[in-house]
Amino acid sequence: MLNINEDTITQAVLASMDDRCDARLRTIITSLVQNLHSFARDVQLTEAEWFKAIQFLTEAGQITDDKRQEFILLSDTLGLSMLVMAQNNKKPTECTEATVFGPFYVEGAPEYENGADIANGARGEPCFVSGQVRGLGGTPVSNAQIDVWQSDEDGYYDVQRPSEGSAVVSHQARGSLRSGPDGRFHFRSILAEAYPIPHDGPVGRMLEALGRHPWRPAHLHFMIKAPGYDTLITHVFRDGDRYLNSDAVFGVRSTLITDWVQHDAGLAPDGSKMEKPFYTVNYDFILNPAEVSA
Amino acid sequence: MLNINEDTITQAVLASMDDRCDARLRTIITSLVQNLHSFARDVQLTEAEWFKAIQFLTEAGQITDDKRQEFILLSDTLGLSMLVMAQNNKKPTECTEATVFGPFYVEGAPEYENGADIANGARGEPCFVSGQVRGLGGTPVSNAQIDVWQSDEDGYYDVQRPSEGSAVVSHQARGSLRSGPDGRFHFRSILAEAYPIPHDGPVGRMLEALGRHPWRPAHLHFMIKAPGYDTLITHVFRDGDRYLNSDAVFGVRSTLITDWVQHDAGLAPDGSKMEKPFYTVNYDFILNPAEVSA
Repeated sequence: MLNINEDTITQAVLASMDDRCDARLRTIITSLVQNLHSFARDVQLTEAEWFKAIQFLTEAGQITDDKRQEFILLSDTLGLSMLVMAQNNKKPTECTEATVFGPFYVEGAPEYENGADIANGARGEPCFVSGQVRGLGGTPVSNAQIDVWQSDEDGYYDVQRPSEGSAVVSHQARGSLRSGPDGRFHFRSILAEAYPIPHDGPVGRMLEALGRHPWRPAHLHFMIKAPGYDTLITHVFRDGDRYLNSDAVFGVRSTLITDWVQHDAGLAPDGSKMEKPFYTVNYDFILNPAEVSA
Repeated sequence: MLNINEDTITQAVLASMDDRCDARLRTIITSLVQNLHSFARDVQLTEAEWFKAIQFLTEAGQITDDKRQEFILLSDTLGLSMLVMAQNNKKPTECTEATVFGPFYVEGAPEYENGADIANGARGEPCFVSGQVRGLGGTPVSNAQIDVWQSDEDGYYDVQRPSEGSAVVSHQARGSLRSGPDGRFHFRSILAEAYPIPHDGPVGRMLEALGRHPWRPAHLHFMIKAPGYDTLITHVFRDGDRYLNSDAVFGVRSTLITDWVQHDAGLAPDGSKMEKPFYTVNYDFILNPAEVSA
């Protein structure tokens, strides 16, 4: 410990942990220190570059608040979120694939009946969404909790809108529904549009310096929970979107892309008469049975 | 890009960088992504653990301000600061070794004449510090800028003291001096004491969970600049300190430990009469010639 140098520092840090501390934590910190030091040695990180990294993290901390999560954006854009999600959601190929959670989920969104309009004032072309929640083999899953959230026609989530003097989130284009006895659900909303992830902070500057764009292809977020099944966190992507092949957060899986059908003005799926064109999306979700604990 | 999974995500992130972006940045981000992903795979990081990491970084950002730098503390306690410092400060063995910069340096500290009392009201037993700045072969380095900063008898730096309604830092126990024509310097200050790094935040909780203490052995910080020489950032440690073998930030090098001599009341090195016991420390600094750019 008295003659630490660039060769001995890694072992010194690992040796400083008490053998009696939590074994999982020790495993995690051991690998973190080894990989962090390996990175610094690989690139022969300079002191000026180290200080830029400190400034980057400091700015990420400063811009992060209840509505903005720069550290999740950083994890997303470096592919860490997708990696962690993928390695924790291995399941039979029949099951709906999971994808990244993202930073825009909000606790306590309104509960809606099937058929409701969840836009709640958010602007965009009308879009009718439907589907069925099933288990393996086709069993309908009734009373599943279906949380949905999405962007509006300008590519913004409600939480990104200026709060106009109010700290209260108005919960637009997000809500919680339940599947019916046949596993089916349906609701009205607006057409989700492609959008750039918030890029006026350090992560945006990083993307720009790397010659990367901040855009995500249009998608609906879903989180589906039902007793006896693993929680499914995923998106439904709009086929034909120009950013499907270059999602800034690496969240696209081909099985999650579906046709969002455009219709002329006329009768909507819920029987209402639409005076302007509208869209329909149908997507079924297949849940993975939860592991039964011993 | 449409079928990214846990095996292909790393290559997808690397492929997203534009070939025309800055080559050094590409090198750094490539290694960062590879090592970050390697860490997540090694430990099979779970989604709950990932979220704890996001919360940890968020809290580190929240506690960081002009006077508190949790990200530097994190880098220090994980040994990254020492590694980066060591691999960027290789020099002949005759030269004084460098060590970590730490988070308590402040720009714009007062300039003092040799012999001045830099405590400026900071509390502690009197300590008279002297030394000589030399180049290789013993050449005295005159007019070197010598920045010094240190903790007080309670183990606090001035910037850690409650500001009592004022945002102005009072610059206690820190200052900037110049070496004389013979390379020598001397000043009066107070005895630096061992102290815990700020541990009321996420880094402190991490140390506690790892069974590590937050203490640093007593030391004086020095930053010495002179034309024609590499800037030297280092500490002088107090021999006998109980934490020399377990510095929380891994900054101790045996060549930087010296005897801080305790004296009975009587005549101080500056000729003043001390009514209480006092300390003296003498340490000489050998600078490395700067590389001459072509």
